[in-house]
Amino acid sequence: MRSMIPDYLTDVLEHVEPDTSGATAGYIPELADAEPEQLGAAFATVDGQVYAAGDCDAEFSIQSISKPFVYALALADRGFDAVLARVGVEPSGEAFNEISLEGGSGRPLNPMINAGAITTHSLVGVAGSDPAERLERVVDGLSAFAGRQLEMDESVCASEMAFAHRNLAIGHMLRSHDILTEDPATVVEGYIRQCSLLVTTRDLAVMAATLANRGVNPLSGKQVVPEPVLRQVLSVMATCGMYDAAGDWATQVGIPAKSGVAGGLIGTLPGQIGIATFSPRLDAHGTSVRGVSLFHRFSSDMGLHVMEVPPAARAVVRSNRVVGSGPHAIRVIELQGGIRFAGVERVVREVVETAPAETRVALDLTMVSSVDDVSRRMLLEIVRRLTLEGHGVTLVDPESILPGPHPGGGRVTVVNDLGETADLVADEERAAPRA
Amino acid sequence: MRSMIPDYLTDVLEHVEPDTSGATAGYIPELADAEPEQLGAAFATVDGQVYAAGDCDAEFSIQSISKPFVYALALADRGFDAVLARVGVEPSGEAFNEISLEGGSGRPLNPMINAGAITTHSLVGVAGSDPAERLERVVDGLSAFAGRQLEMDESVCASEMAFAHRNLAIGHMLRSHDILTEDPATVVEGYIRQCSLLVTTRDLAVMAATLANRGVNPLSGKQVVPEPVLRQVLSVMATCGMYDAAGDWATQVGIPAKSGVAGGLIGTLPGQIGIATFSPRLDAHGTSVRGVSLFHRFSSDMGLHVMEVPPAARAVVRSNRVVGSGPHAIRVIELQGGIRFAGVERVVREVVETAPAETRVALDLTMVSSVDDVSRRMLLEIVRRLTLEGHGVTLVDPESILPGPHPGGGRVTVVNDLGETADLVADEERAAPRA
Amino acid sequence: MRSMIPDYLTDVLEHVEPDTSGATAGYIPELADAEPEQLGAAFATVDGQVYAAGDCDAEFSIQSISKPFVYALALADRGFDAVLARVGVEPSGEAFNEISLEGGSGRPLNPMINAGAITTHSLVGVAGSDPAERLERVVDGLSAFAGRQLEMDESVCASEMAFAHRNLAIGHMLRSHDILTEDPATVVEGYIRQCSLLVTTRDLAVMAATLANRGVNPLSGKQVVPEPVLRQVLSVMATCGMYDAAGDWATQVGIPAKSGVAGGLIGTLPGQIGIATFSPRLDAHGTSVRGVSLFHRFSSDMGLHVMEVPPAARAVVRSNRVVGSGPHAIRVIELQGGIRFAGVERVVREVVETAPAETRVALDLTMVSSVDDVSRRMLLEIVRRLTLEGHGVTLVDPESILPGPHPGGGRVTVVNDLGETADLVADEERAAPRA
Amino acid sequence: MRSMIPDYLTDVLEHVEPDTSGATAGYIPELADAEPEQLGAAFATVDGQVYAAGDCDAEFSIQSISKPFVYALALADRGFDAVLARVGVEPSGEAFNEISLEGGSGRPLNPMINAGAITTHSLVGVAGSDPAERLERVVDGLSAFAGRQLEMDESVCASEMAFAHRNLAIGHMLRSHDILTEDPATVVEGYIRQCSLLVTTRDLAVMAATLANRGVNPLSGKQVVPEPVLRQVLSVMATCGMYDAAGDWATQVGIPAKSGVAGGLIGTLPGQIGIATFSPRLDAHGTSVRGVSLFHRFSSDMGLHVMEVPPAARAVVRSNRVVGSGPHAIRVIELQGGIRFAGVERVVREVVETAPAETRVALDLTMVSSVDDVSRRMLLEIVRRLTLEGHGVTLVDPESILPGPHPGGGRVTVVNDLGETADLVADEERAAPRA
Repeated sequence: MRSMIPDYLTDVLEHVEPDTSGATAGYIPELADAEPEQLGAAFATVDGQVYAAGDCDAEFSIQSISKPFVYALALADRGFDAVLARVGVEPSGEAFNEISLEGGSGRPLNPMINAGAITTHSLVGVAGSDPAERLERVVDGLSAFAGRQLEMDESVCASEMAFAHRNLAIGHMLRSHDILTEDPATVVEGYIRQCSLLVTTRDLAVMAATLANRGVNPLSGKQVVPEPVLRQVLSVMATCGMYDAAGDWATQVGIPAKSGVAGGLIGTLPGQIGIATFSPRLDAHGTSVRGVSLFHRFSSDMGLHVMEVPPAARAVVRSNRVVGSGPHAIRVIELQGGIRFAGVERVVREVVETAPAETRVALDLTMVSSVDDVSRRMLLEIVRRLTLEGHGVTLVDPESILPGPHPGGGRVTVVNDLGETADLVADEERAAPRA
Repeated sequence: MRSMIPDYLTDVLEHVEPDTSGATAGYIPELADAEPEQLGAAFATVDGQVYAAGDCDAEFSIQSISKPFVYALALADRGFDAVLARVGVEPSGEAFNEISLEGGSGRPLNPMINAGAITTHSLVGVAGSDPAERLERVVDGLSAFAGRQLEMDESVCASEMAFAHRNLAIGHMLRSHDILTEDPATVVEGYIRQCSLLVTTRDLAVMAATLANRGVNPLSGKQVVPEPVLRQVLSVMATCGMYDAAGDWATQVGIPAKSGVAGGLIGTLPGQIGIATFSPRLDAHGTSVRGVSLFHRFSSDMGLHVMEVPPAARAVVRSNRVVGSGPHAIRVIELQGGIRFAGVERVVREVVETAPAETRVALDLTMVSSVDDVSRRMLLEIVRRLTLEGHGVTLVDPESILPGPHPGGGRVTVVNDLGETADLVADEERAAPRA
Repeated sequence: MRSMIPDYLTDVLEHVEPDTSGATAGYIPELADAEPEQLGAAFATVDGQVYAAGDCDAEFSIQSISKPFVYALALADRGFDAVLARVGVEPSGEAFNEISLEGGSGRPLNPMINAGAITTHSLVGVAGSDPAERLERVVDGLSAFAGRQLEMDESVCASEMAFAHRNLAIGHMLRSHDILTEDPATVVEGYIRQCSLLVTTRDLAVMAATLANRGVNPLSGKQVVPEPVLRQVLSVMATCGMYDAAGDWATQVGIPAKSGVAGGLIGTLPGQIGIATFSPRLDAHGTSVRGVSLFHRFSSDMGLHVMEVPPAARAVVRSNRVVGSGPHAIRVIELQGGIRFAGVERVVREVVETAPAETRVALDLTMVSSVDDVSRRMLLEIVRRLTLEGHGVTLVDPESILPGPHPGGGRVTVVNDLGETADLVADEERAAPRA
Repeated sequence: MRSMIPDYLTDVLEHVEPDTSGATAGYIPELADAEPEQLGAAFATVDGQVYAAGDCDAEFSIQSISKPFVYALALADRGFDAVLARVGVEPSGEAFNEISLEGGSGRPLNPMINAGAITTHSLVGVAGSDPAERLERVVDGLSAFAGRQLEMDESVCASEMAFAHRNLAIGHMLRSHDILTEDPATVVEGYIRQCSLLVTTRDLAVMAATLANRGVNPLSGKQVVPEPVLRQVLSVMATCGMYDAAGDWATQVGIPAKSGVAGGLIGTLPGQIGIATFSPRLDAHGTSVRGVSLFHRFSSDMGLHVMEVPPAARAVVRSNRVVGSGPHAIRVIELQGGIRFAGVERVVREVVETAPAETRVALDLTMVSSVDDVSRRMLLEIVRRLTLEGHGVTLVDPESILPGPHPGGGRVTVVNDLGETADLVADEERAAPRA
């Protein structure tokens, strides 16, 4: 069998190809002269599978798509407090190159606008590193996100430097507020070099998948940034990534995203997938016209909107029955599926309502596919409370989906299948009566 | 066993109780004189369980918390196009009572600011309904969300009317742009009456859970608004619900939310839970001080942030093996857990990479807890493609998690357990070779 | 001889007549349907001569041109402090119907924008007067400026009331800030009635001339508002009267001015002239297109720009000579022209440098045409100082241009011609030698 | 006699001296450490008399007071169109260091804010001059306004350069809009050097007097900038010179003015006087606290407000009589004072109403002190019209106040006194009857 995903990608690219509206970015010749018909798309899964179609290996400059990744690097290198002291997280409702500084403090409103991104660039690496070291850290960090060493487009870089007046204006304004504390021209140059790194659509999909995968590059398996950084980065992409079109994007597409003026566009579904598209013609917001269309299709076809209510899961409690009889009876509650707060609450309720009369209670986790942190804690609390009430509690957990089950003050026996439980009961009874 | 959830609620209420900062809303005596020490919280699950603690049955006026619900009613009654033509979805980055109209059109930026909410009120019910009918529809709709008939606080309403100058200003401004097309004073009065409905914390949790539950009130089981409305409402709450604190809330709490000046605050986790808190002292943004603290706790303790990457699920492909041998051999691919796009992609890959030599292929869905729409379509496409390649395909689906498995051009046999499949194979062979 | 001024007016009207650009105000039929070809202009001098040409007797609604006059009435009726507490004097740089309230206080930025004009209307008459009394005072006051009883256009008024949404919005916003302290709808109605008064171009010229003439209507001779009010009104017209075109107007025309949407436009040159034009087609700022052209012509042709440096005056000291000889010698300093600070300073210098050795000093004011307040005080100080030094001082002032010449501590003799002075000297000497 | 003007200056300085509110500019040590008690004031008349008191010879940096003078130089060097294409004339209503560029064009709103002043600096000298030549032209130009060679404070200049981040930001922003077309850092450096020129209060008064005196330095007698530039510069000072306090200043002081952060403040009364004050402590607008008080005093004590209605001048028609009788009769209309439009209009009327029956008409200008351009043209038109009607017209103009009296199509005889006129009549009659 052939996978239908490449077919799907090919199909959607064909669907948007006739749209030749918009125009390439006009401010430097390298962008203005890009072949406007280029069109590519790629998906990268959190376990490293990449699907790519069209001009997915064409290189182009990363531009503003570097912003969320460099924000992640800054958070990783300096910590949340140091970064938040200099760059806010509020949507500006304005275009990407508006200065948008907070009254008084001069703090850029968020890291997705240029003012915030320039500041963020200055916060990568250890404090006090020189501009060359810092740039090296940025290049290496972005390369780690992509899973290969990225190169700079010196021609784009030179042109951008020659037209950097607005960014230099922003840099000096930041310097005047002591948001930048060094020569603004040097920081702006570093930022421009960051934006001039060459990527392919495929690279961008892997980078987005690294964000979706708790900071671990699914190809290399390396932890690029620590996990706590991701929630912050994805939240900021969701609220500020699309500038003044944030609301339309949030309602209609609902995928945290970021675009670049060279025509790239990425989106990240936490825990699921990284998506990238490439087509150089831009709309009035500076975002790829066909890229926007593709993301609308992806969101709608694949149910990827973050506010999409997931399908009603099969009840987390698969069965609740008594195995054996008399003193040998075991109350067995069988769970299934992925368990998050809403599921574990249902388990609590089942146990409470059952009020098991049996001495022995087993929670069968064999068919459970995932357990999140709060659910793990609450399952252990169920065990603890049952133990305190005098029950003997067994977890049937052949694949250790609930690792380290040591509830404070409780006691639990872990077995691989329910048969063992029955055996254990028999063993116990042969030994000594429980207190 | 006693449930630990009430204990948890009691514990977090105790934790925030000492915080007496902030002040009750001062603009009308009914709000100014509210007992400031009141404190309550409630959770409502999508299957109708309500946990409530503290002053969870104290009544207070719903105020701005009515906005997302009335927006849902307007979308349901008039359709997306009619509503979007008059109210946008962009965050304003401004306080709730800023006028914030789009330049030119005069369209309010979003339905969570007063200008948008007044307009939204005017769009409830069938076009041309008179103000009394419209108000009745609003009251009945909000009551349906709450699952009980809500009453109006006439005293609050009268005071609000006497201090409605700013809302009247907004109303006349909307009228001047033809966003409102009737007497603005009448619409503002209706809006004020809407805001004066009395609710309890418990009610609000159920209302929020109705949003989380695809528009179905989990207590009454009634579909209050159609499902497609929900994604829109939740997206707008996520981006615009907290006004000028949107970014802080999105990064730190990450729960679509809405607050009211009487001290109420709600949050909705799609598919999981509705949350409500009540405490009358407000911060500078007009949001309950203790309510904000409680939501920070809930988000952090229970992993409820929408950008929280869910725990790595157990592989969706539980096993891939051959049962039987020779011509009787069946390739059995056993799936598990909840399947969304990222999961079904893994299934596709498994089938592609396996390239089964066996004539018979079975997909065992017994341990699958949910299948979303795109995954359902892709599973059926797998079936279709395997069939086209000459395989006989069997679905093991005892609980019909994949209803209506009629892939275009394919053929599939559905059985309750794998044993049946073996039997079928034997039967087939006894009969006649397949075409 | 025929006066050339009517010829000039006719000529300039012919010059602008071919310009049919712009459009009548479209928001109410009465304005939209005005005959667009109407064109008139009038000058009124401060001594009551009116020159008028074209459609100078056609009636139209006064609209925003009422604003400076009603501001004058409010200042007259309530005093500067009470009015300034509620309406500022800062240019808004925005269009006439922007709300433009000061952050915090809610005070309208100036009385020429609608928010300020509505507030100003509420401040006419004695505090506590009812709306009908107040409106009567406004109508009577505007009529006193015009020198005839003005009538209201009830049809315009009714239409304006039906389209008053924006003004009502402003009114309620002002009420919400307690800038208005009564029902805003009543104040807005009064304001609209004020704007609906019918005037002719001739009337407007007389009204403008009353502002130029220290508040005295040059036709009726009545003091309509007290003199100190005028400087304030003219200053505010100069800085705020042309809204967002203030700078262009100030540099190119330089005449304090105010326009109305019915096509009227007035300008006032303090001490010299009131000008009015009428032509209904408006530019993007809401100002009469041909009116603007006419004012450019008037300013340039007649040197009416307030920053025009006046022609170098003939030296204020016409002659400085000694009449007679020996003990009979009189030092005679002959002055001429209008004397303001710069002139009197020159007189001081002349006296200081002359250091007259003669016992007798005469200041001959026969050829002086005016003396302002500071000059009067300084002339008297010269007299006082000369007297203290032992000089006998004589003023030759046949027309009492320097009334009440009683310098503190000095002594002065006033005569009608220099001959009398010589006689006096002779008389004195015949009497007794001076100390 | 001693002049009372120095006494007056000393008196007002003593009056404001106790006010120690405000603070010196804090951003560079040279300004922060200025002796805060310094206090000086000076008047310079348009004929070159300078009165100065207090610390009137202390040097300080000119700072923003250079702006109107450099604007004048740019207008002189490049013409109005070239300058207006790059710098507007609209008040910004904002603080001096706001960027305040027009949407779209990026043109600074006016030349008094930094963005406009930096642009203006770039427009001095011939197009294409190098930065050093341009700076030399600025220094020489400002020195010409002052009447002495000004020196630069290198220490202030170095400090300003080190803290120029905001001006550099503005410069780069202007460059990004192509308002500047060269390296912004070079222009900003030039601008900072311009602001670092050292002046005394006495210098500033002379500079202001040069503006008042049609561009002619009253000390040196040199024409520093051409006359048409002055109206533009003074208008812009009047509307934009005091930034966000423009309205208060315009109503209460009414003198076109400009302040600098070193504590200087100048004002110009066209045709009359230049005023300067110096005191380093600044208010919230960045203007000298005592300077503001002093200007309030000057305006009020000396009637210097531009909207002050001048004193009613003695009637411009001093007498209207017939001299001689029978065929020898001459109609003599005697004029007096300064004649501007309002005066000449009165003369026209007198002639029209008189409708002289006499063949001979004389206009006696002996007592006229000034005649502006429009009045000159109208007087000649009177002559022309009288001539056409068959009158013989004589001007009695001993001091040639009406030079070049050659009315198109008319004929006029100029005499030194009325006696000559009678003689002429006699002569004529003796000769031949006129055609």
